[in-house]
Parts: sequence; structure tokens; C-alpha cells
Amino acid sequence: MTTVGVLGGGQLARMLALAGAPLGVRFLVVDSVADACASQVAPLMQADWRDFAALETFAARIDVATFDFENVPAETAQWLTEHTAVYPNPRALSLAQDRLAEKTLFREIGLDTPAFAEVDSKADLQRALAEIGCPAILKTRRLGYDGKGQFRIKSPEDIDAAWAALGQVPLILEAFVPFERELSVVAVRSREGEFRSYPLTQNWHADGILSMSLAPAPDSAELAEQATSLARRIAEALDYVGVFALELFVHQGRLLGNEMAPRVHNSGHWTIEGAPCSQFENHVRAVLGLPLGDTSSLGVNVMFNWIGDLPAPAPVLAEPRAHWHDYGKEPRAGRKVGHATLCAFTPLEMRDRLARVALALGREAQAAPVLAVLTAVPE
Amino acid sequence: MTTVGVLGGGQLARMLALAGAPLGVRFLVVDSVADACASQVAPLMQADWRDFAALETFAARIDVATFDFENVPAETAQWLTEHTAVYPNPRALSLAQDRLAEKTLFREIGLDTPAFAEVDSKADLQRALAEIGCPAILKTRRLGYDGKGQFRIKSPEDIDAAWAALGQVPLILEAFVPFERELSVVAVRSREGEFRSYPLTQNWHADGILSMSLAPAPDSAELAEQATSLARRIAEALDYVGVFALELFVHQGRLLGNEMAPRVHNSGHWTIEGAPCSQFENHVRAVLGLPLGDTSSLGVNVMFNWIGDLPAPAPVLAEPRAHWHDYGKEPRAGRKVGHATLCAFTPLEMRDRLARVALALGREAQAAPVLAVLTAVPE
Repeated sequence: MTTVGVLGGGQLARMLALAGAPLGVRFLVVDSVADACASQVAPLMQADWRDFAALETFAARIDVATFDFENVPAETAQWLTEHTAVYPNPRALSLAQDRLAEKTLFREIGLDTPAFAEVDSKADLQRALAEIGCPAILKTRRLGYDGKGQFRIKSPEDIDAAWAALGQVPLILEAFVPFERELSVVAVRSREGEFRSYPLTQNWHADGILSMSLAPAPDSAELAEQATSLARRIAEALDYVGVFALELFVHQGRLLGNEMAPRVHNSGHWTIEGAPCSQFENHVRAVLGLPLGDTSSLGVNVMFNWIGDLPAPAPVLAEPRAHWHDYGKEPRAGRKVGHATLCAFTPLEMRDRLARVALALGREAQAAPVLAVLTAVPE
Repeated sequence: MTTVGVLGGGQLARMLALAGAPLGVRFLVVDSVADACASQVAPLMQADWRDFAALETFAARIDVATFDFENVPAETAQWLTEHTAVYPNPRALSLAQDRLAEKTLFREIGLDTPAFAEVDSKADLQRALAEIGCPAILKTRRLGYDGKGQFRIKSPEDIDAAWAALGQVPLILEAFVPFERELSVVAVRSREGEFRSYPLTQNWHADGILSMSLAPAPDSAELAEQATSLARRIAEALDYVGVFALELFVHQGRLLGNEMAPRVHNSGHWTIEGAPCSQFENHVRAVLGLPLGDTSSLGVNVMFNWIGDLPAPAPVLAEPRAHWHDYGKEPRAGRKVGHATLCAFTPLEMRDRLARVALALGREAQAAPVLAVLTAVPE
């Protein structure tokens, strides 16, 4: 009996546990919240991640530790490595927690990024803005996700407001790039260094939160090759083990690195039904040293993200090859509470399916950019 | 929050819970065994099915009750209907518990069966054997599964031994049919009477326990139409709600009814990866009154059943489109402890995949009859 310990008990831990169960793997989740949604499918230890007495019990009950959230305290990850196997390693986790270190690595391995500068004072910010120009985005170096910890600077007059909003912590100023597309590579690396990646995914955000994904990203063969090769170099540089996502912009036809998530990723949820081995199962396989699974795509896949609350599921349940995911969470503004994945054999079939489902759900606006892309795909 | 209660906490309950979780459904399992394998993925109430005080607590905590095992006492199923919604209904359950009632229904709806006779005394047995001839199989009317409660009578001299083995309970004598093939229909019927069935599955047994399944059963278009229509008539006759399996023999090119299982079925395990909506998800959908899911097959699917113990999983994990299922049970002779499903787009691709996996697992003998059938399929 093998037990995987997961720090964080949200929907990612929940989907890890559901994907790992058929492998005969058991899970133990640590979360400070007693009713974290993963607890509906796996045992939960309620504890703070800095409670080392609790972590000792946790470490004694598991064979390997992993994460459903990148912002686990570095000292916790480090402490765990002294008590159990930990994948991904704390260095990878720590790098991905820091936008400055992350972008520096991107450049080192040959991935361009938007212009950026470290900001530790208002004077730094003024200097950086003069250099980078407007518009620019001021971001906290740490603890940002889903658009949190960001301030868009449209003109130098915004400097005071931006500094007042975020100036208490280390920052990074990034050029705002009017990108053509957002893409992500979801990839997995084994303990032995084997690397596999899923087809490139195209993503759309709303209010900084992922709204829709389409995979494989249409018309992207050359970009996919580049993106996969870059993802591999990042994984190798970090001796990364497990699944991660590399988020990219396409600007003037070129790839720019946005950020890396050292965990299973929302833009890979379509792999549950759209790939023979999902990102969740592959993460479990990787951290346990099992052979990696097949990351090919079985057709065209579209994911709707449900933010705040869930629409009525019936239109999705009634559609062939459509899949519903309710995370068992209470509705709350800005909260990821579920997703739906539509699968089809061809872009044309997907266009019809997506249009029908979006209409029935009253989500035409959410689906519109994906439909536009599918309509442009040659049959 | 909707909770499905399941009587029985084995691998079928486990796979129901795993399939229902993405729908946002919670589960509560009742089993007399504390470590029943479903308890690894869903809360378990340890109680005897005749403990009506415990059942009262159970009924109060759930929205609908269902079964992972057909041999739930009839009075328990009946009691439950007075306290909660129960699907399938106790009449269907009770009929499927009794081989005599089951075969009588088969004949009523137009499905032939092997010759059979009720046996309640040794004199009945002598009379029945004279009429039916040898070889014949004496079976308990109730509580038989996986070849249990059966005695093969090769000649009239076996009567005493057969009677000594089984004579304490009501029996049925059935003609032994030298069938060409074993097939099953796994189907689902909704609360509103909608009926859907998965493609016909061909099955192979060893020692009375399912060993291999192949779906869709090759070369069976006409039989599939008949079998589906018969399954629909049985479901309608019983006002059945949920998933069930109808096991059939092909004898001299004709379908004969063997038995019906009023639950998700081992010969439908391939639907987890081989169909857009698995038998487990469809059962959950049906008992909750949700729209039924897509029961088409996405290609060719083969299931290996693991009886007694599990082979090493690596050869399956390393193969593309191959899926491992370890039920988290202790090994024990004759016990179903897991299965593996291989998926392919064509019979030719499957032949190669199956041969490679069988060889690597050292299971060539188990796979041989399926390979023989696949080899005979025209490309």
C-alpha cells in the first residue's frame, strides 16, 4: 500500500486522488481547512503547513509528498525533504514562487520574456517604468495567482496608487504585452528524467482567471515544438519531477514566457477525458517512480471553467462526449468551483458541440473567442 | 449536496464513487466489513444489512440507495423503499436473485434459455435429469455468483453427490449448453424510461469467473440488435432504473439467456476508458434522475480480469492507451483484485497491443482466446 501525501486539499488534490485511486494508491491530504474539497474523496489531516508536529505525523504516514498549491512555505518543503521523498523538489517550488527568479531562468534557458525589472522601492519603480514604458504591470514577486497581487500601470500618474497597493513586499515590473494568443504547455518529467508533454493548449482568461481552454491549440505545430523544447529545458534545469505548466504569450508570432506553475494546472484539466493518461494520473505516476503515461490527445478538447458558481449541468450531461466536474465547493465570487470538458473528433464537430452547449448554458460570451478560433480552422 | 448510499462496499461501490465524484455527488457505503475497499474513496458505515437501526441512520443521510451486490436481503431492500428512494426497485433485485424467476422472465419476453427445471427434492432432480439429459448443471436458485453454488452432473451417477452438495436449498437444473460464445449487454435505463446500451461485449470465463472481455464483440451486428432489444424488454418488464447486465450464450448462432445482474457488471469495466460515459457514471446518473450519458465505444477495448492477485503493473503502465485498476484489496485465491483495460482504434492495433502486454505480463494463456478472435477479424 502506497500513500501519497498532498499539501493542499483543493480541487487539484481532489482530482489527483481520483486519478490515483485506480492505481491502488492511497492519499493523505493536509489542509488548514477541515472541509477542503479533497476531503470528500481522501482522508484529510487538518493542520497548518507550519505545524511541524503535525507534519511529522503526516510524513510518517506517507511514502511521498507533493503539492496542490505552489505557495507552500519554503521551510515546510525543505523540512519535508528531511523526513520523506518530496516531488517536485523544494528548489523548483521556490523558484516558481518568485516571478523574478522564474523569468531569470526563462531567459537563461533561451525563452524570451516581456521586459521586466526588480522593484524594491518607489525609486526603483520610477526608474523601471521609465525604462519599460507604459502600460506595464506591477506584480508581487511572491504569492500571486489568478491575477491576484497585480496592478496595471497605464501612465506614470499611477505610480503612487500602485505603490500604495503593493509596495509592502518585493515586486517586479513587467511590460504589458499586447499578445495575440495565450498558450500553455503541460508536461511531466519522471524521476529518471523522462520527459513527456501534452499537446499545446490555447487559453483565454477573464479577470485574470482562466476562462476557456482549447487543445490542441490550432495552427501551432512550429510553436508547439519550440514550447515543448523550452519546457523540457526548464524541467531539466530544475531537475523537476512531476507535472508542471509553462504559460506562454504569443507576441508578433514569437513565444514569450509568462510564468510556470509547479503542479498540475487548470489548463490541463481537459486531459482527464481528452488524453489516454491525464495530467493527474501522470503526476501520481511521476512522483511514485512509475512509468509515465500516454500524453497524446484523442481529438479536439474544450474546457469551460466555472468561476463563482456552477451553471445547471443538464445541457452538458445531455451532450455526447461532454463531461461535468463539480468540485464540491461552496459558491463564492472568484472561486474555481468546477469545469466542463467537451471532446470531439474534429474541429467542425467541436464547433457544433460547443455552440450548442454554450447556448444551452447561456454562456455564449464565454465560449465566443474559442468558437471564433475553431471557425477559422480549415477543415 | 446529493448523497448516494450504496449497500455493499466492494470494487463496484468503489468505482461508482470514483465515477460519481466529478458530478459533485457524495457517497455513503454500508458494509459489514470495516476495511471494504470502497472505504478508501468514500465514507463507510460498518453495519449488517439486517441492522435496521443502522439502516435508519443510513437512510437519513442519503438521497437515494443503490447496490453493489445483488444478494442484499429482500426485506432490507423493501424496508429501504419505505425510507428513501431505491434504485433498482426491490422487485427487480429479487427477481435477479432467483435463477428460476429470472429464466421464467427471459422466456416471457421472448429470450430463449437452456432447458431448465425447478428442483426441490431428490425425486425432482431425478425427474428433471431424465427430461433435460446429461450433462446438466445443478445450481442454487439464490446466492450464486462467480460459479459458486453450482454442481456439474455428467451422468445420473452424480445425482447423490450433487444432492449432498446443494440439496439443502431450492435448486434449478439447467441443461449444459456447449455454447460458441458468451456475450453480455450492459445497459442503463433512466427513471423516465430512457434506455441506452453499450456495444455488445464478448466474455471468457475461467473457473466460473470472468477472465477476459472484448468490446465491441466482433462480427455481431445482428446479434447486438437482438440482444439490445431483449435487454430493453427485460428492463421495461421490471421498470428497472440503473445499469444492469444481461449475460447471453450464443448456441448454434442463436442467443440464449444465461443470467441478469441487477447492477454495474464486471464485463462493463472497459467502459471506464472505452466509452465517453462509463457504466459507473451512467448508473449514478440514472439513480439520480440526471440525463443518461453517451454509451458508444471509442474503438476496440479488451479487459484483463485479475483474480487472486495482481501481476506487476509496469507492462500495462508503459503501454499507450492501457489502464490499470487495483481495487486496493488483499490478495486471496478466487478474489477479484483488479483489472486492466487496453484501448485501441482498430482490431489490428489491439492485436499488437494485447500480444505485447500479455507477453510482458506472462499472461499469454489468459489472452489467447481473445487474440484468436481478433486475428479472425477482417481488417
